[in-house]
Amino acid sequence: MAVSAPHAARRRMLRAPLSALSLDALIVTDLVNVRYLCGFSGSYGVLVADERSAHLITDGRYAEVAGEMAQGVRVHVQPLAGIDEWFRRFFQRGGWGRVGFEDSMSVAQLGLFRRRMRGSGARLVATEGVVEGLREIKEEGEVRLIARAARLADRLMELAWAEARPGVREADLSRMIRRGAEDLGARRESFENIVASGPNSSRPHHQPGGRRLRVGDPVTIDLGASLDGYCSDLTRNPVLGRVTKGFERLYAVCLDAQQAALKACRAGRRGCEVDAVAREIIASAGYGDYFNHGLGHGVGMRIHEGPRLNKTSETVLRPGHVVTIEPGIYVPGVGGVRIEDLVVVTDGAPRVLSRSPKELTILPA
Amino acid sequence: MAVSAPHAARRRMLRAPLSALSLDALIVTDLVNVRYLCGFSGSYGVLVADERSAHLITDGRYAEVAGEMAQGVRVHVQPLAGIDEWFRRFFQRGGWGRVGFEDSMSVAQLGLFRRRMRGSGARLVATEGVVEGLREIKEEGEVRLIARAARLADRLMELAWAEARPGVREADLSRMIRRGAEDLGARRESFENIVASGPNSSRPHHQPGGRRLRVGDPVTIDLGASLDGYCSDLTRNPVLGRVTKGFERLYAVCLDAQQAALKACRAGRRGCEVDAVAREIIASAGYGDYFNHGLGHGVGMRIHEGPRLNKTSETVLRPGHVVTIEPGIYVPGVGGVRIEDLVVVTDGAPRVLSRSPKELTILPA
Repeated sequence: MAVSAPHAARRRMLRAPLSALSLDALIVTDLVNVRYLCGFSGSYGVLVADERSAHLITDGRYAEVAGEMAQGVRVHVQPLAGIDEWFRRFFQRGGWGRVGFEDSMSVAQLGLFRRRMRGSGARLVATEGVVEGLREIKEEGEVRLIARAARLADRLMELAWAEARPGVREADLSRMIRRGAEDLGARRESFENIVASGPNSSRPHHQPGGRRLRVGDPVTIDLGASLDGYCSDLTRNPVLGRVTKGFERLYAVCLDAQQAALKACRAGRRGCEVDAVAREIIASAGYGDYFNHGLGHGVGMRIHEGPRLNKTSETVLRPGHVVTIEPGIYVPGVGGVRIEDLVVVTDGAPRVLSRSPKELTILPA
Repeated sequence: MAVSAPHAARRRMLRAPLSALSLDALIVTDLVNVRYLCGFSGSYGVLVADERSAHLITDGRYAEVAGEMAQGVRVHVQPLAGIDEWFRRFFQRGGWGRVGFEDSMSVAQLGLFRRRMRGSGARLVATEGVVEGLREIKEEGEVRLIARAARLADRLMELAWAEARPGVREADLSRMIRRGAEDLGARRESFENIVASGPNSSRPHHQPGGRRLRVGDPVTIDLGASLDGYCSDLTRNPVLGRVTKGFERLYAVCLDAQQAALKACRAGRRGCEVDAVAREIIASAGYGDYFNHGLGHGVGMRIHEGPRLNKTSETVLRPGHVVTIEPGIYVPGVGGVRIEDLVVVTDGAPRVLSRSPKELTILPA
């Protein structure tokens, strides 16, 4: 995974925001951003990048491997004692004036950096979402990795459907998915999966519990895998044994909304416009009050990232955005349905990475 | 788990630090601290406590359950829109002047709170470790929960020993432990376990990998369970099939150091004094350069918390501190050993919660 070419190109892309913010350098402390910019995936690393060069500061545990992981970057191992003075000299040598830091940093950590830079001539300036902004547009190589994670999610969904039988507890099914992710080679799940059966399906963030699946249940299964640093996200909503007319209608409306939103999801549209397409279909079917979350979100190194697709999102979609399209209808006491695909935005129809079947499926009971 | 009595008592204990810091109220955003103070364990909750009362602010997902979880606390559900104005009025109604916040908060989150409090009359003041300070001393009920998590760790160690055979990969053994934790009823592991075999055992933070166990290997197994919000931590170091004279000596020195440190670990001693007891034994055996971490750390709702036992720790131990005692000797190219127990500090000998056997064990190969 240590391909240095994309990392160097990403660091070059930092130049534009640095210049726009009049920054001489940027301190990157979010470990996902550090990994994105230089490939280092250890548990402690600070990247300091300026227009010409990048420095990775880590500790003794990574002295041996940091150089292999982070290519084209100067690696520094901070000492055990005298860290403040060491940092002060590091910033002094850099000769920077305005130095940005990421506002995801804790106030305590900021205090540390302030102390460490005292007398170095550098001045700290808060920045918001600089590297996250770059990360929103995925390169071809990143899309390939996300597609692999999506393939794994499809296989996990298959496994979940095979194991969903009357009498099985939600928590058991949830555990099978978790273990399946590992068995199929994922680093881990990209988030704790959701298995919500029967009346629980009307709760979008239900925690899988002791309830046993029954004939007639709709079962919402929301899962994802994390592989080589990239995530996938997939929701399907089969029913067990038989289906009621009421649920059939709910499902048809949700699927309609999902497919219309897929068609609308292309470069040039704003997030709120795509959201509105799904929302209007659901509202005109009389379920307007029961779609109480946004249509989708970006997915990449994190399971939730930009851009957002919701009522207020003004973000204009661009080729290379990878987003979920996941309308849901949740009728308390009756049940819920959510259908979610992971897609790559293009100038035309989106490239749908999820392949699990979407027609209403009645699992054998 | 919703026992309201300890939570109310804990909130009363907040009064002293609030008064010492001249604070009218404290905003608690660290979710572990929120849970400690009121029992709420959802994924979004902010507790605001003053001398007389406490308010839990959460979102719509927890509207139903927050009241059950958090007893004796006023629950507020923040609205979907107009959050800033809602918070401003909340702080205005509180009538507070100096309001502390936890410096574990991100700079971005602090910006949000600053904006939300504008015009409310409240003034934000950074605080460090206020609730963490209370958490260091465990109540009897907390010790019981930690003891249960420690019992689970003992059983996981038994399982690991039973599965450790020549040919088994480190990563496989690691997975068995992870699954065992779940099967035995843990919420999850309290941290990602470490299985380091043969030469890898000389790397204290080794990531379990593809190496297969061999006859003659020392195997460092460091694991823990999380149960009802509390953690355990345990390291043992058996060998596979046969043992070399060199390792036998290493083990004997480490065990000596561990047992001497256990004896020294009692109320009134400083962290650095207990550390020194182990360190001197290891140094006088000639391994001084190979014990390159602290002797131990506090364990509770987090796997690493106060107090620290290391070279520089001036913390005076008190009854109710729960700490690990874990000296290690790591000789690169030869192998390593670490022996770790979880103990409760008392005025006399510590109460050792770990029961896994500590004499050098040769597993059948």
